[in-house]
Amino acid sequence: MPLSILKKHRHFEGETRFYEHTSPSTKTKMKFSAFLPVPPEKIENAIIWLSGLTCTDENFMTKAGAQRVLAGTRTMIVCPDTSPRGLNLPGEHDSYDFGSGAGFYVNATTEGYKDHYLMYDYIKKDLTYLLRSEFNLSKFSIMGHSMGGHGALVLGLREPTLFQSVSAFSPIVNPMAGPWGQKALRGYLGDDQAEWKKYDATELVLAGARRSDSLLIDQGLSDEFLEKELMTENFVKACKEKGQEVKVNYREGYDHSYYYISSFIEEHLRFHHRALSF
Amino acid sequence: MPLSILKKHRHFEGETRFYEHTSPSTKTKMKFSAFLPVPPEKIENAIIWLSGLTCTDENFMTKAGAQRVLAGTRTMIVCPDTSPRGLNLPGEHDSYDFGSGAGFYVNATTEGYKDHYLMYDYIKKDLTYLLRSEFNLSKFSIMGHSMGGHGALVLGLREPTLFQSVSAFSPIVNPMAGPWGQKALRGYLGDDQAEWKKYDATELVLAGARRSDSLLIDQGLSDEFLEKELMTENFVKACKEKGQEVKVNYREGYDHSYYYISSFIEEHLRFHHRALSF
Repeated sequence: MPLSILKKHRHFEGETRFYEHTSPSTKTKMKFSAFLPVPPEKIENAIIWLSGLTCTDENFMTKAGAQRVLAGTRTMIVCPDTSPRGLNLPGEHDSYDFGSGAGFYVNATTEGYKDHYLMYDYIKKDLTYLLRSEFNLSKFSIMGHSMGGHGALVLGLREPTLFQSVSAFSPIVNPMAGPWGQKALRGYLGDDQAEWKKYDATELVLAGARRSDSLLIDQGLSDEFLEKELMTENFVKACKEKGQEVKVNYREGYDHSYYYISSFIEEHLRFHHRALSF
Repeated sequence: MPLSILKKHRHFEGETRFYEHTSPSTKTKMKFSAFLPVPPEKIENAIIWLSGLTCTDENFMTKAGAQRVLAGTRTMIVCPDTSPRGLNLPGEHDSYDFGSGAGFYVNATTEGYKDHYLMYDYIKKDLTYLLRSEFNLSKFSIMGHSMGGHGALVLGLREPTLFQSVSAFSPIVNPMAGPWGQKALRGYLGDDQAEWKKYDATELVLAGARRSDSLLIDQGLSDEFLEKELMTENFVKACKEKGQEVKVNYREGYDHSYYYISSFIEEHLRFHHRALSF
């Protein structure tokens, strides 16, 4: 799995880089970006950021302001693309909330998609494999926004030993209960809702998935998607019922944008940096 | 000149806003963005950021990371669009370095452009008028990047009492000597090079323009445009010859991008904040 650097920019005392490689899971080329605060050989661990609908590997790196916070540390941050690219599957490019730019971090089982849209395995296997082999890392944390917040919670709950800590901004905590999630889960997994539950953070907690640490969630109260798509309280209720620790910071007046994310990214990065430094 | 808010986002403890208004200078609607760290009535002064080629009023607000630095202060930062929009002048949309997205902060005199491309007056008159009348401000500083760095130096040198301080990232310091500048100055001003000199920071200093404070310039040494378009040293030489104080921070390994700008924006904002707080 050779890794190519497509471009790199000196940034703070490190580099923001854009990589490309061939993924065994998606059977396509995949892109991810990374900020290396120090030279590669000095990096000790990584935070993986999963982006939301319509994003590529670039949005987070240009908008969140994460690099300044990690400058001087030995923690890199890595941001994969949100779906395979370069395919032309039926319906793949028809809407912003399904197909390209909208992989939802699941392993698809439906015709066409099952051969490429294995974004769960891509993160769990390919990306961590690359971080281990190329940078000699063994400790990872995971976080994300919206669809990527969903991905971070699901991966964190299903792979509790793979990730040292888990946090999310404005996550889709209960995709089975909202239009975005229902459309994606049906499209990638078919009609059997038992399959959907494997990729629904609220259902996972209700079914017994557990982490020994506390999850961290950030949610703007002026988020236009809170009521219909995100439904934070469904997850909080499930966690309370099942004894999973979760801290939710509700933020008065903040929306769903990167303006909001950049306002609180430092808190989340310090949370992960502490967990990774243990 | 009524001011409409097109959108606003809670950001840090303030708001990033996008405004629109009708400009007497350009005779079009014009857009600008602003970060208000505190409520409008508590703002005391403003930094104006002039963007580079192809930018709108949005790039700086999403990429530079300025808002975090100004959070908690009474200094707002304002970022105007880089040209009039919505016209269809001959050749206006044919290239990235002339016409729309490339106003070069001059008052055009050529046919067609002379009626609308008065970006020098737009900044000097309309924008400062709005900041005075809507926010009750009287103190301004100015800064910018590339074409906007050129704009900041020219406006700062020609209007020394209007702006408390002037700085630039990767500025085109001597547009008469490079392809971008030559194309723009010819297109907006015609063939008479005496007219070009009024919008060339190096020529202005050579002709006697002077500020009593020190200019601040930041320049990446891996900037792909340094040699052919920016030519920082031409300006440094003119300043030395004429006794204009200028501090240039050359940055080893940094390029022309917002990754570079965000690495050093804090230093520039603190420079302006100090000057504005006098």
